This record gives sequence, structure tokens and C-alpha cells, in this order.
Amino acid sequence: MEPATRKERLCVLSAYLTANPNQLYPLSYFSELFGAAKSTLSEDISIMRSAFSRRGIGEIEVMMGASGGVRFLPAMPAEEMRRALEEIAQKLESPARILPGGFLYTADIFLSPVYVEKMARVLWNFFKNTSPDFIITVETKGIPLAMNVARFFGKPVVVARKESKLTEGSVVTINYLSGSSKRMQTMSLSKRAVREGQKALVIDDFLAGGGTVRAICEMMKEFGIIVVGCGVAIATREPEVKRIKHYKSLMVLEQIEEEQQKLRISVNLA
Amino acid sequence: MEPATRKERLCVLSAYLTANPNQLYPLSYFSELFGAAKSTLSEDISIMRSAFSRRGIGEIEVMMGASGGVRFLPAMPAEEMRRALEEIAQKLESPARILPGGFLYTADIFLSPVYVEKMARVLWNFFKNTSPDFIITVETKGIPLAMNVARFFGKPVVVARKESKLTEGSVVTINYLSGSSKRMQTMSLSKRAVREGQKALVIDDFLAGGGTVRAICEMMKEFGIIVVGCGVAIATREPEVKRIKHYKSLMVLEQIEEEQQKLRISVNLA
Repeated sequence: MEPATRKERLCVLSAYLTANPNQLYPLSYFSELFGAAKSTLSEDISIMRSAFSRRGIGEIEVMMGASGGVRFLPAMPAEEMRRALEEIAQKLESPARILPGGFLYTADIFLSPVYVEKMARVLWNFFKNTSPDFIITVETKGIPLAMNVARFFGKPVVVARKESKLTEGSVVTINYLSGSSKRMQTMSLSKRAVREGQKALVIDDFLAGGGTVRAICEMMKEFGIIVVGCGVAIATREPEVKRIKHYKSLMVLEQIEEEQQKLRISVNLA
Repeated sequence: MEPATRKERLCVLSAYLTANPNQLYPLSYFSELFGAAKSTLSEDISIMRSAFSRRGIGEIEVMMGASGGVRFLPAMPAEEMRRALEEIAQKLESPARILPGGFLYTADIFLSPVYVEKMARVLWNFFKNTSPDFIITVETKGIPLAMNVARFFGKPVVVARKESKLTEGSVVTINYLSGSSKRMQTMSLSKRAVREGQKALVIDDFLAGGGTVRAICEMMKEFGIIVVGCGVAIATREPEVKRIKHYKSLMVLEQIEEEQQKLRISVNLA
């Protein structure tokens, strides 16, 4: 293949780097791919860097030296975060989502790649300086959100399960009180999934009483793992006192009343 | 902001379009974003299109007219597919993954954003002409793969659950025989999640007897939905006769023997 032109390289470099956030590519990788000198690539990268930074797409980091390379760190301008969350909050605020028992139907939102990507980008932006080794969530509804946050960090997800399976190998199990229903619940984590001394970021879709997130944190303590943060998409206003103190929620379910078919969700960018 | 230069536009356009596969962007969207004429953007797009096509990144489709626009369809060269699947198969082939009972530990692979993205890209490539309205899977381990496939189609995921929850609203439940364990199982799907006449693509992580995938197909029939394809990451060689006839698997678990700690996985690109 004949060597690429600058314009071609800019298109391909942009596609590669943004597709794999936080992955370090050695310059030699692109140098071979394009048949271009590293100095030429450095110029490409500085054009790309200023384009991305000017449009709020993200940062391009260049690390020098033998083990160096280039990587992409996504960004999200404050205005875009607000717009994304307001759009999702509005979609969630439909009274048709009120289920018997005063529950909120959210499954479609947490299974929409577009909305999940936006919520994950905001969470990444909030937690990007925490350097977790993995993202932990509990099955089922938080998994897509956790996967998308993990993609931005370039790290894997670990899923705690509500019932342990043969296909998980040996597990550690804890019992806990679910905050809202006050029922005894079980949570298991495969011993293979984590190592002592690692750092975990907890991500979940919904936080009411906080019992589940607290149980994850306690389980992490069992494994000798440091929790560097907790982020959820939606937290309820009530109860005001949660079983966990420090967490970030993107939206707050202020009110949900089945009888009156009333529902209010606010955006929480503070 | 002053108007963007061609190089800047190429970087930003590449990042936007590849981040949202199968999403149609009106040209006017970029025209406003960059303060550039549509004719100028058309030239940008044709440079980008030839760069992407030459490097096997994907196709750029341009639709003319008032409701027209531009969208990105990912591609994956055959050689890259083989390399990706061989890397994953090799990672899976470690005897340390053999669990008591002859099960295979795969949780880490299906929770790694990088590996899941690669498997999803191959599945998208295989099913891209099926035009599903949604991707369906069953909880839990297939969810990340299904979400990534869904992202390439620009469509949502629907998850059938093994136990129904209050937060799903009213559900349809079917009982079925799990192919491998011959145990009676239950599968539920929220009535809100799908509509009669839609088209579904079934995606799952693992297929042994085929009972679960068959149950999804039967459930789709209950809802009046057409199944346009079934794709799984790994299928077992045995039993040779599955409870479902037509499916695509990326890899085949040829052999797994707990006693002898033997394990063989082949790549299936045919």
C-alpha cells in the first residue's frame, strides 16, 4: 500500500484513538501502519490534539521515550453533560413509566447504547482522576453502564452476582440487608475476578436505600480492595439518609406517586 | 469560534461518525458545527470515505435529499477478524479456566470492553444485512456482547430475565428445558420492551444444548416477532445436535476435560 497522505492519516488516527480511550498506542504502531516517519506522525498528532481540544472531544496525551506512545482521554463540555442528562431525565419523567408499587421502568434507557454511552461519559468525567483497576457492579441492570464507564478507563468490569453460579468458580458470598425492602439478600463474587490491593470504582444504575452499594463496598473490604468512588445514574431523594455516605448520582428521583401518576426527576451536575 | 480548517474538520468528523455507528447525521448538523458550506463538507466526507475504505475501518454512506445525511457503517477485514478471534480463543484455552464440573471460566473475557468490542464487531459484520429492530439476549453474561452488537446497529437491547422483577412491569413468562442440564427453567420478558411485527437478532455468550436460545425464539413467536438471526460467541462441539438449527458461533469449544485438564477451542469464521 502506498504511504498515506496527511488527510488520510488524520481520519484514521482519529478513528483509532477515539475508539479505544485510555489505550496507549506506541508511535511505531502508526508509523508502520502508515509508512510514515515518527516526526511526521507527531505533527499529525498535534493537529488532532488541537482539533479535539477546541471541540471538547477530549485530550490527546503523548508520552515520550521507549515505552511511550499516544492515547486518547475523552472529555465532555459541561454544557453537553447538562444537555445529555436533561434529555434522559425528560425521557424518564413520563408517567407511563410508573409501575405498580411505585417503581420506575428504566430498562429501555439502560439498554440503549446511545443513552448509556452519554451517562457513562459523564461518570467518567467525574471519576477520571480516581485510576481504578476495575469497575464493579452488581447484576443485572447496571452492567451496560459499568461496561461503558470501563471502556473510557480502558479497564475491565467485575460483576457481583445475586446468586452464585457454577461457572464462576469458587466465590466469596456475603449477606446484606437491602436498604429499601429490608429483605436479606446475598451477593457473591468470584475469587478469580479480583486481587488484593487493587482499586475499584463502583457503578450502578439505581440507588434507593444504598444497601446494595454498601454491600459491594463491604465485599471489597473482604477482598482487601480499596473503593475509589461510587457512581450511580439515578438516586432517590427519599430516604435522605442512605446506607452509604459518599456517592455521585447523575439524576435524582425527587418524587414518584403511583396514585396521582406524578413523577419528578432532576439533573444533578453539582 | 472561527471556522474550522479542513484538517480540523477531518479529525472531528472521524471521531463523531465512528463513535456512533449507523446514526444518520444531517449534513446541516456539521455545517452549523463547523461554519462550513455543505459542498465543503461533501469534499471532507469523500476524503474520509476513501481513507476509511482503504484501511478497512468502514463505509461512509451519504444519503441525498431533505431527510438525507451521512452515517458510518463499521467494517472488519477478514484478516483482522481471524486475528481477533484467535487471540481470544488462545486466552480462553488456558487449563486454569477449567472449573469443577467441566465448566469454562469466561466471565473476564465477556466483561473486558476490548474483547467484547472485537467479538461484537465480527458478529455485526456477519449479521449486518439482517436489519433487526432490536438485539435480544438473556441475562446475565450475554448482556455486554449484545450491547456492543446493538451499538453497531444503532439499535437497543432487550433482555429476557430468568426471574421476573417488579421493575419490569407486566411480563410474559415461558417455561423451557435447558438443553444441557435438562432442568426446567423460566424466562420472562417485559411487555413494554417489544412490539408485534418487529425483527429481533438473538445474541448470547455461550451455546451448549441450545435450549436457552430456542426459548428466546419461542418467546419471540409469542410476541409476534420475527427472529432474523442468532449469534453466539462460543458454541460447544457436543452435543452435535442442538435444540436450535441456525446459528452462527465465533468459536467452538471442541473439548473440555476436567480430569486431564485438557481444553481446545477453535475459531469458526466460515
